Amino acid sequence: MSGNTFGKAFQVTTFGESHGPAIGAIIDGCPAGLEIDLDFIQNEMARRRPGQSSIVTQRKESDVVELLSGVFEGVTTGTPIGILIKNKDARSKDYSHISEKFRPSHADFTFTEKYGIRDYRGGGRSSARETACRVAAGAIAKLFLAHSSITINAFVSQVGSIVLDKKIEKIDFSKIESNIVRCPDTETALMMENFIKKIKKEGDTVGGTITCVVQNCPTGLGEPVFDKLHAELAKAMISINACKGFEIGSGFEAATMRGSEHNDIFVKEREKIITKTNYSGGIQGGISNGMPIYFKAAFKPVATIIPEQKSVNTKGEAVTLAGKGRHDPCVVPRAVPIVEAMTALVIADHLLRKRKNRL
Amino acid sequence: MSGNTFGKAFQVTTFGESHGPAIGAIIDGCPAGLEIDLDFIQNEMARRRPGQSSIVTQRKESDVVELLSGVFEGVTTGTPIGILIKNKDARSKDYSHISEKFRPSHADFTFTEKYGIRDYRGGGRSSARETACRVAAGAIAKLFLAHSSITINAFVSQVGSIVLDKKIEKIDFSKIESNIVRCPDTETALMMENFIKKIKKEGDTVGGTITCVVQNCPTGLGEPVFDKLHAELAKAMISINACKGFEIGSGFEAATMRGSEHNDIFVKEREKIITKTNYSGGIQGGISNGMPIYFKAAFKPVATIIPEQKSVNTKGEAVTLAGKGRHDPCVVPRAVPIVEAMTALVIADHLLRKRKNRL
Amino acid sequence: MSGNTFGKAFQVTTFGESHGPAIGAIIDGCPAGLEIDLDFIQNEMARRRPGQSSIVTQRKESDVVELLSGVFEGVTTGTPIGILIKNKDARSKDYSHISEKFRPSHADFTFTEKYGIRDYRGGGRSSARETACRVAAGAIAKLFLAHSSITINAFVSQVGSIVLDKKIEKIDFSKIESNIVRCPDTETALMMENFIKKIKKEGDTVGGTITCVVQNCPTGLGEPVFDKLHAELAKAMISINACKGFEIGSGFEAATMRGSEHNDIFVKEREKIITKTNYSGGIQGGISNGMPIYFKAAFKPVATIIPEQKSVNTKGEAVTLAGKGRHDPCVVPRAVPIVEAMTALVIADHLLRKRKNRL
Amino acid sequence: MSGNTFGKAFQVTTFGESHGPAIGAIIDGCPAGLEIDLDFIQNEMARRRPGQSSIVTQRKESDVVELLSGVFEGVTTGTPIGILIKNKDARSKDYSHISEKFRPSHADFTFTEKYGIRDYRGGGRSSARETACRVAAGAIAKLFLAHSSITINAFVSQVGSIVLDKKIEKIDFSKIESNIVRCPDTETALMMENFIKKIKKEGDTVGGTITCVVQNCPTGLGEPVFDKLHAELAKAMISINACKGFEIGSGFEAATMRGSEHNDIFVKEREKIITKTNYSGGIQGGISNGMPIYFKAAFKPVATIIPEQKSVNTKGEAVTLAGKGRHDPCVVPRAVPIVEAMTALVIADHLLRKRKNRL
Repeated sequence: MSGNTFGKAFQVTTFGESHGPAIGAIIDGCPAGLEIDLDFIQNEMARRRPGQSSIVTQRKESDVVELLSGVFEGVTTGTPIGILIKNKDARSKDYSHISEKFRPSHADFTFTEKYGIRDYRGGGRSSARETACRVAAGAIAKLFLAHSSITINAFVSQVGSIVLDKKIEKIDFSKIESNIVRCPDTETALMMENFIKKIKKEGDTVGGTITCVVQNCPTGLGEPVFDKLHAELAKAMISINACKGFEIGSGFEAATMRGSEHNDIFVKEREKIITKTNYSGGIQGGISNGMPIYFKAAFKPVATIIPEQKSVNTKGEAVTLAGKGRHDPCVVPRAVPIVEAMTALVIADHLLRKRKNRL
Repeated sequence: MSGNTFGKAFQVTTFGESHGPAIGAIIDGCPAGLEIDLDFIQNEMARRRPGQSSIVTQRKESDVVELLSGVFEGVTTGTPIGILIKNKDARSKDYSHISEKFRPSHADFTFTEKYGIRDYRGGGRSSARETACRVAAGAIAKLFLAHSSITINAFVSQVGSIVLDKKIEKIDFSKIESNIVRCPDTETALMMENFIKKIKKEGDTVGGTITCVVQNCPTGLGEPVFDKLHAELAKAMISINACKGFEIGSGFEAATMRGSEHNDIFVKEREKIITKTNYSGGIQGGISNGMPIYFKAAFKPVATIIPEQKSVNTKGEAVTLAGKGRHDPCVVPRAVPIVEAMTALVIADHLLRKRKNRL
Repeated sequence: MSGNTFGKAFQVTTFGESHGPAIGAIIDGCPAGLEIDLDFIQNEMARRRPGQSSIVTQRKESDVVELLSGVFEGVTTGTPIGILIKNKDARSKDYSHISEKFRPSHADFTFTEKYGIRDYRGGGRSSARETACRVAAGAIAKLFLAHSSITINAFVSQVGSIVLDKKIEKIDFSKIESNIVRCPDTETALMMENFIKKIKKEGDTVGGTITCVVQNCPTGLGEPVFDKLHAELAKAMISINACKGFEIGSGFEAATMRGSEHNDIFVKEREKIITKTNYSGGIQGGISNGMPIYFKAAFKPVATIIPEQKSVNTKGEAVTLAGKGRHDPCVVPRAVPIVEAMTALVIADHLLRKRKNRL
Repeated sequence: MSGNTFGKAFQVTTFGESHGPAIGAIIDGCPAGLEIDLDFIQNEMARRRPGQSSIVTQRKESDVVELLSGVFEGVTTGTPIGILIKNKDARSKDYSHISEKFRPSHADFTFTEKYGIRDYRGGGRSSARETACRVAAGAIAKLFLAHSSITINAFVSQVGSIVLDKKIEKIDFSKIESNIVRCPDTETALMMENFIKKIKKEGDTVGGTITCVVQNCPTGLGEPVFDKLHAELAKAMISINACKGFEIGSGFEAATMRGSEHNDIFVKEREKIITKTNYSGGIQGGISNGMPIYFKAAFKPVATIIPEQKSVNTKGEAVTLAGKGRHDPCVVPRAVPIVEAMTALVIADHLLRKRKNRL
C-alpha cells in the first residue's frame, strides 16, 4: 500500500534519504542465470552522478554500488538482489536553516502535512538522491534486456526554449554521451550548454525535456486494461523528481490530427508486419507492436534557486529563504540515465509478465 | 500480475468484452457505511453512454448498472461490490469482415501477437466499452469522496485545433453539461460541435484534449517515491483508450520556464497555508498540497474511419478495409466522465492509503 | 489491501453474499488458448452443491455457472474471465430473527465490530456460499493444470473420532465419489455416514478432516522466502470457512521425530531424482520437489445447531437463539471440492509464477 | 510475483544469504511518529542469535541491526526503513563439500531445480539466517503494536514427546525467558533441555512445537474472504523454516468435537462482549473478536545431522554425506522470537488495513 515498490514481476523496492548513512534497493524477481557486469552498472551510476561536469550539482558522491546478495560467482541466483550505495558527501549543515521553513515548490510542506515529521536534511526522502537506486536497479534490468537485444536510449531534446529539431529516425544515439548536456546534436548541445551556464551564473534554473527510444522491443508487452505499456511508462516517468508531463508517440500533437492522417498502416516487410508510420509510438491497445517505442517527458526547473524567496515557516509565519545547498541549474542532463533506468524497469517487468499470456 | 485491477486500497477489477453478454467490475475496499445513490450512478453512466447525442456513436446501450453485492439496505457493507452491466445492442456481424484483418491503429494486431487468439467482435476487450465499468466504479468513488467534499470536474479543452483559451480559475464548471461537446465555454463549444459534425460527415475522426480539476483535495495524498499522486493520475489517464499524453500543472510548458518564475510561493491566508501561484498543479513531491489539482490529457483521433484503408491480414497479406461498425467521430465528449471516473478512483484510493501515514 | 483477491499470477477476486441476487468472480491471468469444458465446471459445482445428499444442507441451488467474458468460441482469450452464479433459493426470512443477535461462533459479532453494519441474511458475506465461486474458479484452474498432467484429489479422512487409517499410497482416489461422505474407503465411509446422520438427528454438528494429494506436480513451484508453496497452501486452506488447522507432510507428527528418521533420502530411479520417504510432503525449502504433495486440513463442527443457545444481542443484552436456517451437520463432505479448488488455485498460480525464475 | 515481500500495509521485503556480506530488509508502511527503541530491537535479535546457549548452533553472530533510513532523531518518518545486518562468522569452507551434493530434506535440490543455480554456502537463501531480518522487522512491528497495548508471547510447548501440559490461561509468560529452552514451566523446560542435550550428543536432531498468544488485540482485524486473520497467521508460520503445521484455537482437536460443545457463547462482562470459552482462538469469520488469539506451530527436526547419510549429487550419482556445518539440535528455542516476529508483522499489517473499513 505504500509507494516504494515498482513493478510486479521485476520488482524494485528502494529506501534511503539524501543525508542518511546509505540508500539502497532490493530487486525481487530478476531471473536466475544473468551475468552481472559490475563495470556496466558503475558506468551507469557515473552518468547520473553529481559532480560529473560543470553544469551539474557539485556534491561529490562516488556512488559505489555494493551488491549484497542474489549474485553468486558473478551470476544472479533468482533470489533478491540487495543493493547498497553509501552517502559520502552529505552536508547536512547546509540545511539547518530550512528545518523550520517550507522551500517553495519543494516537498517540505507536503511531507510535513502527510507525516507530521520531516527529515529536512537535503530534502530527506524527497531528494532526487533516491534516483541513484533506480539507476542501479535499472542497470541490472538493462543487462536482462540485453539478452533479448532490447536497447534503450534517452537524450535531452529541449532545454528552456532550445529544442532539438530532429526526427527520431535521424538521431545518432552514439552521440548522446559526446557532450555534457546529453543532446545527440553537437550544435544544439552547445547552445543548451551555454544557456545552462548562463542560467547558473544568474543563480536561476531552467526546465527541459527528455526523449526516450526503446528499440527491438518484441510484440506483446503490456497488460490491458490498466497496466497498458504506455500507462506504466507514464507512471514511471512522472514518478521521477521534477517530471511534469509525458507523451507517447504523437502525444499532444495527436489532439490536432485526423484519423485519416494519424492511422499507422500495416505492411509486411522482410517477413515481419510493421507499420509505415509510427504515430502510435510502438504501442497499440496498450501492447507493444514491435515498432520503436518513443516518448517524451517534461521536467520543470529545479526549485532551489540562489535569489532570496519569500515563504512561510512551520508556524505559517512569513519568512525569507536564501538558496543554499548544492543543486543542478538544469535537471535534464543527469535525468537522462534515470529516464532510461525507469524505462528498463518497465520493459523488464513486462517482458517477464508476458510469459504467462499463453498456454 | 495481469493488468485488470486498479488501485491498492480502493481496488477495482473489471471484466468484459464489447460483444459478450455483459461487462462488469468488482470494487474491493470501499468503506462500509456509504449510502449508495443509484440515480447518481445511472446519471454518470448516461454521460458516457453511446447514442447520447448526434456527435457520438449510435450504438444503443441503456447501460443499466446492477449492484449484485456489497450494498445492504442502500448502504455499503465493506464487502466487495459486484457490478454488472449487460450488453444489449452488440452487432457482432458488423465485425465479421475484420476477423482476419488487422485494422490500422487498433489493437487487433497486438492482441493477436500477445495472446495468439482474439475476440474480434467490436474490438473485444480492447473496446472502449470496458470504460463503462470504470464510470460505474468511479461514480461510487465520487460518492465516497463527496463525504470529504472533494469534487472532480473534467471538460473538453481542445478539439482538433480549436482550443479553449481560458484559465482554470475562470472556468464555470456548471456549464460543462450545457452542451453536447462538454466544453464549458458556449462559443468554443459551438465551434467544436460544428467541427466534429463536419469531420463526421467526411467519415473522418479528430483528436482533442480534456482538462480535469480536483477541488478541496486535502493535503497529504500520494505515496512517494513511486506512487506519487500525479504518477498515479498519469497512469490512470494513459490507461484510457486513445489517450496519448498527460501533463500536470505547468506540464510541458515547464520545460521552458525558469525556477524563479515557476516556484509557487507559500503564503498564509485565512488560517491556511496556500501558494500564490499553482504551477505545481496541487501536487509537490508527489503529495497533494491542498491547492486545486489540475491536469490535461491528450486523445488521438479514433482509429475507425469510413474511407477505405490498406492493411494486412493475419497471414500478412495485403488487404483493404472499409470502416464499418458504429464509432465516435471524436472521443473527447464521451471521455469526460471517464477521465473524471479514473481521477475519482485515484483520489479515493489515496484518501484511504493516507490513513496509514501516522501513528 | 482488502482481502477478496487470491493469487498473484492466476488471480481470482470474488464477490457476493448468501442472499444477494448473485455471487461471482473474476479470474485475471488465466493463459490464452485453454479449452473450457463447461460440463466439467458444472460437475465440480455439483460436488459442492447444497442438497446433493441426505447429509448436507437442503438449500436448493442449481449453481449454474455463467461465463460472461474471457472465453471466445470455447477457448480462453487471456482476458479476464467473468463468472456469475445466481442465488435462487435464498430464504432470507429464516434469518430475520437473528438480525439483532450474535450467533455463537459465527461471524455476526466480528463483522459488526469491523464494519459497523452487517448483512445478516444467511450470514451475508461470511457464508460458505461464497466458496461456490472458488469451486468455479478452481475448476478452470484444474483445466489449466490438466495440460501439465497435474491432478488433485482430496477426500474425507476423519469425521469426529472416525479416522481413515490408510497410508496415502494405498488410497484409491477413484472411490472418493463412490459415497456421499467422500471417503475413499467403503467401510469407513459407511461408519462416517451413519455417525453424521445420528448427529443430524440430534440437531448437532461434528467436525472432521480432509486430506489432499497433488500428483505429477513438477519441481520448482513455490516462491521463498514468504510465498513458499506450503505457506500458500496453508493460507488457502485456513481461508476456507470452518478450517482450523493445516499440516503438510509429516505435520504435527514431525514434532516428535528425529532428524535421522525424518530425513527423506534422495535416490535416482528411472532417470529421475526422487526421495525414498516423503515426510517432506513433496515440498522442501518451500519449493516442490516432484514427489506427491499431501496435506491435511481440520474443520470445526458447523456453528449452527438446533438446540437453543444463549448469546447476546447487538446491545449486549442476554438473549436465546434457536437454530433455524438450513445447514450442514458436517462440513467435510461438501468441503472436499473446495479444498481441491483452493489447491488448484495455488498450484496454477505458482506454475505461472515459476515461468519467471530463469533467464 | 516473487515471494520476498510480506504484508500489504506494513510491508517487509528481505534479502540476503547465509554467507553473503550482509542480509537486510526494507519496511515500507510503518507509520510516522513511532519512537524507535534500538535496545529493544537488539534484545529481540539476541533471543534469536546463534551461540546464545549450549543447545543451539555455535555460529557467532553479533547480529547488530543498522537502521539506514526512515528514522530521524529517533522517530520514524513514514518513509521506508532500511535494515542492515552484517554477516560476520560465515565459514563457507564448511560447505564446499556439498557444492555438488543434495543434502537430504534441505532445499539444495529444489533450489537447483527451480533456478538452475544455487549458492551452496550455508544453504544460501534457504538458510534460516534470513529469519534474523524477520526478527528485526518484527521488533519494529512490536513497537508499533505496543501503542495499542497489544502483546505477543510465544513459547516452546513441545520437544519430541515432551509436551507442556498446561492451559493457555495458566501460562506465566514472564517465565519464558527464564530458561534456555523458552518453555514457561521450569520442570518441563529442564526435561526438554536434557533431552535436547542428549539428542545433540548423538549427533541427531529433534522437532517440537511453539504456542503463541496475542493479547489485547482489538476486534475487527482480518480481511475476509481470503486474507482472514488466521489464514495470514498460517501463512506467516508455515513460511518459517522447518514449520510443518499450524492450528488456531481448537485446531485439529476441533475435528472430533460437536457444535454444541465447540460453540463459544457470548456474554457481556464489564461493558465488553466476550466469549465464555475460546475454541475459536480469538478469531471468528477470519476477524479478531477481542479474545486472546492463540495458535500452535509444529517444527520438524533440523535436517543437518552428524551421522553419514546417503544421497545423490547434481549428476544423480549416489554419494554419502557427513554432517558438517554448525547447526541446532532442536530449532524451537530459537524459533520462539521468529514466531513472535511473524505474528507481529501480521497483526501490525491488519491493524493498518483495518483503518479503511469504515467511512
